[in-house]
Amino acid sequence: MTSEKIVTAAMLAIGDELLSGRTKDKNIGHLADMLTLAGIDLKEVRIVADDEPAIVAALNGLRGQYDYVFTSGGIGPTHDDITADAVSRAFGVECIHDPDAMALLGAMYERRGMEFTEARRRMARMPNGARHIPNAVSTAPGFIIGNVHVMAGVPQVFQAMLDALLPQLESGAIVQSRTVRSPFGEGDIGGPLGEVQKAHPLTSIGSYPKFDGKSFSTDLVIRARDEALLDAAEADVKAMIETIATAKKGA
Amino acid sequence: MTSEKIVTAAMLAIGDELLSGRTKDKNIGHLADMLTLAGIDLKEVRIVADDEPAIVAALNGLRGQYDYVFTSGGIGPTHDDITADAVSRAFGVECIHDPDAMALLGAMYERRGMEFTEARRRMARMPNGARHIPNAVSTAPGFIIGNVHVMAGVPQVFQAMLDALLPQLESGAIVQSRTVRSPFGEGDIGGPLGEVQKAHPLTSIGSYPKFDGKSFSTDLVIRARDEALLDAAEADVKAMIETIATAKKGA
Repeated sequence: MTSEKIVTAAMLAIGDELLSGRTKDKNIGHLADMLTLAGIDLKEVRIVADDEPAIVAALNGLRGQYDYVFTSGGIGPTHDDITADAVSRAFGVECIHDPDAMALLGAMYERRGMEFTEARRRMARMPNGARHIPNAVSTAPGFIIGNVHVMAGVPQVFQAMLDALLPQLESGAIVQSRTVRSPFGEGDIGGPLGEVQKAHPLTSIGSYPKFDGKSFSTDLVIRARDEALLDAAEADVKAMIETIATAKKGA
Repeated sequence: MTSEKIVTAAMLAIGDELLSGRTKDKNIGHLADMLTLAGIDLKEVRIVADDEPAIVAALNGLRGQYDYVFTSGGIGPTHDDITADAVSRAFGVECIHDPDAMALLGAMYERRGMEFTEARRRMARMPNGARHIPNAVSTAPGFIIGNVHVMAGVPQVFQAMLDALLPQLESGAIVQSRTVRSPFGEGDIGGPLGEVQKAHPLTSIGSYPKFDGKSFSTDLVIRARDEALLDAAEADVKAMIETIATAKKGA
């Protein structure tokens, strides 16, 4: 049976533009996909504004509750990029111009013949003692302090940082899933499906309705960390659909 | 000057499928857009699983902090639709089969010649004393209790419910915005832009980098609730860009 390790995570997406509707977030869904593949359970997501007290409160609410926290946004060169300050405040450490990040960025701008402005130097700021998350796209690193992983908001950069990060994370037993397509809508299967779920408490059965313009059908997604549990639940879900089909024919 | 009313809101999106990556949320961005148009400030978003304690904790964390809370998901007919129970628990009231919702749904299924199954009856469940949010798409209503507005997760239904709801909400002074396009990247403008922001504390200036494959430019979005404040900040942002352009030509 499944006594395998469960690893939990939360995400904190930071940015006024996500809350005003100007930018439609793409990082939450990507992180969700990647963590599912890695066997890490994403349990909660929060989106807050570029507002230091809001970031600090959310971060301190999340980092004690879950194994990992991932953030997106607010690590660029402008005045509204305050994530490094907020994370430093949350951990009670100084926010510094990290010497290794300064060297990395300084060399990059020198190669490109560009001035290493004060704004660009802001991208080297991080909590004292943080470790880098490398960034193959635009050089400026993300960072790790404690169980908090701070990444960029631009999706291409967020994805590159996450790719660099994932192999370093402890992953849990991977949740496997099977999808059974039901030709009946949730109104027909909801009652019996609740009974099947009760009979398989270590398995999670999700129900996702579809409408083709004429009638409803349902995708039933069975999830478990153990193959035998999956087999048993899948068999009962299929038997349930047979029973409903037979009853409908008789009616 | 602006002494106009500020109305705040939070969203709670509910559903395992959002956290596993199976479904990519579309409701957060839509709500953000609509609230911005209505002059309501969306301050925070949370996503939690179909898990009663998680929903109750998030809801009780949010409803005391903001004027309005909007939820999506978990009000369908299956066993994993537990939002009505969780909201009732959060408010300490009984979750009942609402008589008006029962009548509405019963009549609809009778018209369609469909059985009003136990699963379908679940869609009439809501906290005792809740008011309906009408649903032109699929009949089953959302509901309002206190400052919490409970809506469906299916985007078409969420949007229909929000359309029905918005005219009833108290709205605040509308945030207006102007976008100034800067031909320079954030690394060039970040320093001076921070000074402009400091000089205009009642105005929020957001900076959104763009990369065309060759070079960076930036969209500068100036937001305020007052036309005169917007004018003043916009003039300073434009002057800043002129100054940088002149300096670049001289260099």
